[in-house]
Amino acid sequence: MSVHAHTPATAEPTGVWLVGARGSVATTTIAGCAALAGGLLAPTGLVTETPAFAHSGLPELSSLVFGGHDTSSSPLPKRAEELAAQGVLPHWLPGAVHGELSAADSRIRLGGPLTGDERGTEELITAFAMDLREFMRTTGAARTVVVNVASTEPAPGPGEWPASSLYAAAALRTGCSYVNFTPSTGLSHPQLAGAAASAGLPCAGRDGKTGQTLLRAVLAPMFRQRALQVRAWSGTNLLGGGDGAALADPAAAAAKNAGKERVLVDNLGMRPEGDVHIDDVPALGDWKTAWDHVAFEGFLGTRMVLQTIWQGCDSALAAPLVLDLARLLARAHEAGLSGPRPELGFYFKDPDPGTGGDSTSLAQQYAALLAFADRLGEHR
Amino acid sequence: MSVHAHTPATAEPTGVWLVGARGSVATTTIAGCAALAGGLLAPTGLVTETPAFAHSGLPELSSLVFGGHDTSSSPLPKRAEELAAQGVLPHWLPGAVHGELSAADSRIRLGGPLTGDERGTEELITAFAMDLREFMRTTGAARTVVVNVASTEPAPGPGEWPASSLYAAAALRTGCSYVNFTPSTGLSHPQLAGAAASAGLPCAGRDGKTGQTLLRAVLAPMFRQRALQVRAWSGTNLLGGGDGAALADPAAAAAKNAGKERVLVDNLGMRPEGDVHIDDVPALGDWKTAWDHVAFEGFLGTRMVLQTIWQGCDSALAAPLVLDLARLLARAHEAGLSGPRPELGFYFKDPDPGTGGDSTSLAQQYAALLAFADRLGEHR
Amino acid sequence: MSVHAHTPATAEPTGVWLVGARGSVATTTIAGCAALAGGLLAPTGLVTETPAFAHSGLPELSSLVFGGHDTSSSPLPKRAEELAAQGVLPHWLPGAVHGELSAADSRIRLGGPLTGDERGTEELITAFAMDLREFMRTTGAARTVVVNVASTEPAPGPGEWPASSLYAAAALRTGCSYVNFTPSTGLSHPQLAGAAASAGLPCAGRDGKTGQTLLRAVLAPMFRQRALQVRAWSGTNLLGGGDGAALADPAAAAAKNAGKERVLVDNLGMRPEGDVHIDDVPALGDWKTAWDHVAFEGFLGTRMVLQTIWQGCDSALAAPLVLDLARLLARAHEAGLSGPRPELGFYFKDPDPGTGGDSTSLAQQYAALLAFADRLGEHR
Amino acid sequence: MSVHAHTPATAEPTGVWLVGARGSVATTTIAGCAALAGGLLAPTGLVTETPAFAHSGLPELSSLVFGGHDTSSSPLPKRAEELAAQGVLPHWLPGAVHGELSAADSRIRLGGPLTGDERGTEELITAFAMDLREFMRTTGAARTVVVNVASTEPAPGPGEWPASSLYAAAALRTGCSYVNFTPSTGLSHPQLAGAAASAGLPCAGRDGKTGQTLLRAVLAPMFRQRALQVRAWSGTNLLGGGDGAALADPAAAAAKNAGKERVLVDNLGMRPEGDVHIDDVPALGDWKTAWDHVAFEGFLGTRMVLQTIWQGCDSALAAPLVLDLARLLARAHEAGLSGPRPELGFYFKDPDPGTGGDSTSLAQQYAALLAFADRLGEHR
Repeated sequence: MSVHAHTPATAEPTGVWLVGARGSVATTTIAGCAALAGGLLAPTGLVTETPAFAHSGLPELSSLVFGGHDTSSSPLPKRAEELAAQGVLPHWLPGAVHGELSAADSRIRLGGPLTGDERGTEELITAFAMDLREFMRTTGAARTVVVNVASTEPAPGPGEWPASSLYAAAALRTGCSYVNFTPSTGLSHPQLAGAAASAGLPCAGRDGKTGQTLLRAVLAPMFRQRALQVRAWSGTNLLGGGDGAALADPAAAAAKNAGKERVLVDNLGMRPEGDVHIDDVPALGDWKTAWDHVAFEGFLGTRMVLQTIWQGCDSALAAPLVLDLARLLARAHEAGLSGPRPELGFYFKDPDPGTGGDSTSLAQQYAALLAFADRLGEHR
Repeated sequence: MSVHAHTPATAEPTGVWLVGARGSVATTTIAGCAALAGGLLAPTGLVTETPAFAHSGLPELSSLVFGGHDTSSSPLPKRAEELAAQGVLPHWLPGAVHGELSAADSRIRLGGPLTGDERGTEELITAFAMDLREFMRTTGAARTVVVNVASTEPAPGPGEWPASSLYAAAALRTGCSYVNFTPSTGLSHPQLAGAAASAGLPCAGRDGKTGQTLLRAVLAPMFRQRALQVRAWSGTNLLGGGDGAALADPAAAAAKNAGKERVLVDNLGMRPEGDVHIDDVPALGDWKTAWDHVAFEGFLGTRMVLQTIWQGCDSALAAPLVLDLARLLARAHEAGLSGPRPELGFYFKDPDPGTGGDSTSLAQQYAALLAFADRLGEHR
Repeated sequence: MSVHAHTPATAEPTGVWLVGARGSVATTTIAGCAALAGGLLAPTGLVTETPAFAHSGLPELSSLVFGGHDTSSSPLPKRAEELAAQGVLPHWLPGAVHGELSAADSRIRLGGPLTGDERGTEELITAFAMDLREFMRTTGAARTVVVNVASTEPAPGPGEWPASSLYAAAALRTGCSYVNFTPSTGLSHPQLAGAAASAGLPCAGRDGKTGQTLLRAVLAPMFRQRALQVRAWSGTNLLGGGDGAALADPAAAAAKNAGKERVLVDNLGMRPEGDVHIDDVPALGDWKTAWDHVAFEGFLGTRMVLQTIWQGCDSALAAPLVLDLARLLARAHEAGLSGPRPELGFYFKDPDPGTGGDSTSLAQQYAALLAFADRLGEHR
Repeated sequence: MSVHAHTPATAEPTGVWLVGARGSVATTTIAGCAALAGGLLAPTGLVTETPAFAHSGLPELSSLVFGGHDTSSSPLPKRAEELAAQGVLPHWLPGAVHGELSAADSRIRLGGPLTGDERGTEELITAFAMDLREFMRTTGAARTVVVNVASTEPAPGPGEWPASSLYAAAALRTGCSYVNFTPSTGLSHPQLAGAAASAGLPCAGRDGKTGQTLLRAVLAPMFRQRALQVRAWSGTNLLGGGDGAALADPAAAAAKNAGKERVLVDNLGMRPEGDVHIDDVPALGDWKTAWDHVAFEGFLGTRMVLQTIWQGCDSALAAPLVLDLARLLARAHEAGLSGPRPELGFYFKDPDPGTGGDSTSLAQQYAALLAFADRLGEHR
């Protein structure tokens, strides 16, 4: 199943520190990594396991060690059982990887700020950094990637430090590379501008492109390439789970929707009519349905319509991307690359700005990713 | 509206000879060209009117003169009225371009073989070639492109000459470049293999990619790039009009479906489960609805589904591609290019084989088209 | 086309007074009535032209005379041209019924309150009543039905008189029966409670059931009858036109959505999860797309999904119901019936309460309508 | 959970003999009945567990004993495990009802005719009848209902006895009532006409209405009631499992599709354009997706479209209907009713003809079923 025929016998561990470590995405990531490392399932959805990455020198899945911050105390094995009951994980998986889940759970530390927390910005960063140092010391991880997979935050007011930025600051302070898989602020805080580059650390973000936006990133270029005129692009997302509830907050949804719109604007060269809704539907659990309706004009103004319905499991779509990004960032770190990596735009709704062109078309982003895979291999 | 600021004042005419010249696609092509040349409508859907083609030296829309073969005698102005009644053309358009339609209609000659026709292969080719020569003489067209937009034929038996191949042979014999916009045999007849190249004429085909296959050509690469495992890809097409009736013939539909499947196989690297149906629904007229259902597996084998519904007007989707192809082939002819042009795979379900790789991904095909546009400009 | 073989030679006119007389629904109603009366088109969508109503003594379509109030001054023939350009009316229809449209337009009076209007409640009612009396006098209409087809109003504050209630009061004061085809207040104003019954006038409302809610009224009973457990029912409506803009106002949309939800609650016996969105998409004009997603559980808790996509023309769906209701109310008036008519629940999202039971199932509402048709016939 | 407060303490057993006893529907029926009888799950989808049937005197679920014929020897507990792996049954259910599945499995006898079977019609009927008598003797079932849930057969040639009719004949010969849940011939064989009535046995059929046809039976009446003109009704069904494979046989599919069309013709009063496809998609397993596309005309000929997408689990939709029918037929038998029961049209695509009217509208069929529930109660 694995293409890494050249893997050294004794790989040193690579740390993956998940902010939101007991959420659905994190649980699926950790359980899934264990399942793949143990050869229990095929690596479907994991781009870094395709042949194009065989010579990039990425850390093996079996060498990844997980820890993280969370404000919940529900243990990972229990969370995995809940996801299996919803059909997000195979029902036999929580039992089969119970050991790995427990081990990761023991490395999860309480995040913050908590309700009524009186610690200031600096105190919190310090506390988080201490947790990260302890993780690296006890696991012996040569390099650690911090990945934000926590619930989307509302946009902060001026001068405020949202939690995601505190974690990002702690990552840089402890020499960890950083991935922001959510639309939250993270490293984009004004006081962190340029900090990753100065720290010599690679980073990537924002907001994983898992479903509706993934589709938009391939469909919008089609309309433009064919000179078809998109008049309106409307969308509705139904989902439950923690993400559904978080995004029912209009402020959090606004952050999310901005990314969805950007993909359209960048790929169409204009802003079509139409809204995007994110509805919390607890009955759907982690399963997400996204309906898109595109009204466009063709030759002689003829009006036509494309509709898409995407029914996916949010965590199962996100988790392999988290593993991909952790491996790629760890390797980029090892190879001495630093600052935002526009080559990873393939994974994000709102990618780090690169050097130019139609960078939100998935086809071009994929080409850039493959080139990056080659470049990482050359650094060995 | 036009980007051709450098157009010479007195453009020499370029001939466009349509096989199936009184069908819906041909009527829309001729009426639409007149509307755009007259500035009555914006060139939506016409890729060759985008800035990337401004310096390719393509013939102006106003310089195109139309003629063709058909076995029907229903005049073009009447056909245009019928299409307008269905909403395929703006209701005012047939009146506004009546003169152009009548002029083109006067240049349409009776095709064949007709019912009970006793002429042999050679006689028919000779007759068709004579029609083409007369067209070129009377219009003064320096170059003519023959475009097959007739109803799809059943696949011919061994040694048979289907009508589409007779027309293709007549094109080569009279020095015309050739486009096969249908899945019919045309130039792919065994006895015509290599004939275009030897005749020093460019050609392109087969089977215009207008709706469902266009979508498949952008969606299938997405699944592959994301390492998602497509299990089944099923599709149903509903359409009326002449094409609906023609494709209700299983033999004709088989030819059509082969192209739709090839796009999947080439882009996914495997053949998924699933069938494609083409239903004749006269009530829909020229409006086509294509439903696709893609069952795929993601991370840890999670089962997900993408469905697409495409509601388009078949003739309005095809006509601008016919104009694009006629202009590109005429210019390629002028530039001295000959033989099959793989650079035009962007337009076809079953493109002429090129030099390699993932040539059925729309993104790569578009890049190849843009490179071709540049190359044509360099030949000036 | 008509089933009224027993029609008297010289039918006396019946008045139809439309509040919102220059809107899309009103224009389609008036143009359509003229087209049917003139035998230009079949009476598709007109329930009162089916055989079950042949003996109910309804006024002939040719006997209906139209007038109304509006705050716009754009004349009906122009409005009809605009609708034809959108494909809502056949493009030839505005010309064919120009006379009827002009005649109706001449009977439209300026509504209110206008911007900066200083007239009080009583003054406005008096002015509207005067317009109605003049209409009845000049047309000789024996009976007139006032139908509210104006844009949806936000719910009024306590003690406020919204415009719709002023028109309703004017209707009762002048002896007109009244139909509220919108979710606006109309006769439901607290100070008008019981007024229709005391005035001896029949009335019907609220909020015409034209698309999404019509579907819900047949699908929800199916789930209940089959003991399937609906978990969530979510919906998104996309539409342009005046209604799209009006319903983009959250207060107006709230009134609309209440009716949509009520149909579910009444037919399912519980309130499922899920929201309803109404998006203003100007590019769609009068064409409305409604997507519904129903998540339900079957045997052993198996999770299943039904999705519906309804693509209709709002005015074309509403106009025949307006004609039906005008004819039925005029006949009920003639037959001496008064007060709210629960027998007309077939037409409404939020029907006048009747005597009991599962009154929001379309099947039961249709049975009640047929019984009403018989009863009207008996009163002759 | 149960509404049968009046159940006697020691219910005598009622036999349910399933033809196709190791198929997906049978396995789900037996496992589900055990789960409900044991209070492990709520009776969702079971119409006979709703209050309207509380006083009909139906046999308790706990009193049903299962046996049957099958030509497969794969034991029921194994089949249940397979269905649980597909998500058709809760993953814990096969273990929880292992005893009941094994018990039923021990009562399954080899069906026929087998490949190369040399037994004639009479011999086979005799053998099947012997199996039934042994079942009744060993279980002590006072009454037994034979239910055909085997794969759909191709229509037989003239004079042929298809397997389904052999089983039906054996049922009558042994005094069992009979339900045909499939479109196969069963009791509709010419030589069995009237046989149930003469034998004093009730029977019901044909072809359970579980998904697409259920929807059609509520949607088609809506179009008719609203005087909307359906132009074309097209449908595609995707499913895997045994049924998908069986229906990929065009002869078997033809039998199935006839029922789907009949619902439309009966409810619309005309035959619309459009085809129905049933595709075998093994990847979908027992999960079925049915897409319907309805092109209709409204007021003034405006063209509109309704599309529905039904995603359900075939066995989970069928099994509760099988339990409902077995209970209703057993009670009808006890109450002395005989011959075809048109009151059960609610359950069938092609119901036994009744006394008249719009008998394929689900609303009317439901009303007839409720009346039947009352009538059964009166016979006690």
